[in-house]
Amino acid sequence: MPRGRRPGTSDTRQRILRAAADRFTTAGYDAVSLRGIATDAGVDPALIRHFFGSKEGLFSEMVADQIRPDRVARATRTVPTGELGWYLVRYFLTLLGDVDAPHPMLGVVRSAVSNEHAAGLVRRVISEQVLAPITASTVDRAELRASLCASQLVGMAITRYAVRLPALVATSPEDIVAWLGPVLQAYLTGPPPAGA
Amino acid sequence: MPRGRRPGTSDTRQRILRAAADRFTTAGYDAVSLRGIATDAGVDPALIRHFFGSKEGLFSEMVADQIRPDRVARATRTVPTGELGWYLVRYFLTLLGDVDAPHPMLGVVRSAVSNEHAAGLVRRVISEQVLAPITASTVDRAELRASLCASQLVGMAITRYAVRLPALVATSPEDIVAWLGPVLQAYLTGPPPAGA
Repeated sequence: MPRGRRPGTSDTRQRILRAAADRFTTAGYDAVSLRGIATDAGVDPALIRHFFGSKEGLFSEMVADQIRPDRVARATRTVPTGELGWYLVRYFLTLLGDVDAPHPMLGVVRSAVSNEHAAGLVRRVISEQVLAPITASTVDRAELRASLCASQLVGMAITRYAVRLPALVATSPEDIVAWLGPVLQAYLTGPPPAGA
Repeated sequence: MPRGRRPGTSDTRQRILRAAADRFTTAGYDAVSLRGIATDAGVDPALIRHFFGSKEGLFSEMVADQIRPDRVARATRTVPTGELGWYLVRYFLTLLGDVDAPHPMLGVVRSAVSNEHAAGLVRRVISEQVLAPITASTVDRAELRASLCASQLVGMAITRYAVRLPALVATSPEDIVAWLGPVLQAYLTGPPPAGA
């Protein structure tokens, strides 16, 4: 949190994050420069460094801003454990929004797939901020169970919103929740498979 | 299939496909040029056009060469329907290979996430060559069921091989088959969820 915070700071910060999300979505991690983002956001590049430190810091904040791990953490404390699977699918589809509008979440995935450093940053946000609170709701093999959930959610994001497999685009969010909910619930709280 | 095929043609074709896979993996669809691939493969760019027609054609062939849909199609005819879920996970993990070696499959995903045209090409290969034979093994909602399987497999590819979530990297292929097998089997032949 920058010192000397004043009215308007939060707006500027959000404007930078939005510009960053757009750039990372269309260009990927390597091709993005702080200068370009500064131009889009109408601010001085020095201000981006002031808020986020570096491209690395800005990217991590952008990822957290897309995934909103605080809400996931809150849900794991308030949603009954036996409903968490359904909840996570619904939450994630809401995050991704309209299937016909390209979503910045794809920029996150794109960057993670194309750049090892970005992959490490995404891994850290997912592991520390998203999976950690979820694992608190599981019994054994907590980290693996949460990671299996992440694998299904990320896969749905790619195939429905990026590759746009027709059957997934045509299926309503409610129906996708109905199909994936029990799967995530079994990953979280089901018995481990025989032999695993 | 090009006319005038002669000994060595198949090797050259494979060499071009390997060079293409490398380039698409490191650079993504937009940044790749036929000229660059030709240089890597040690052939004239005209030969690439002769074999594959265009960058588009080369990319589609590269995708098919990675996914080997012919093997999936054969499996759907020979593997008992009640074991197809496990089979598909095992097959896919074998395709992806060593978790510590970056796999060209990530180039396919990277291109699909970053370029709409590439996404369309990947969608066509997956829909027509991979999902179509699988849907023949299912009863109702065939295309949706096969697409749900694709969503879990693609998500595992991203989270284990690109983002490298530690719990997934640390889990053996056999254990991943044990966790994901029943999920894919339920997607394929389980009862549809209530209300969906």
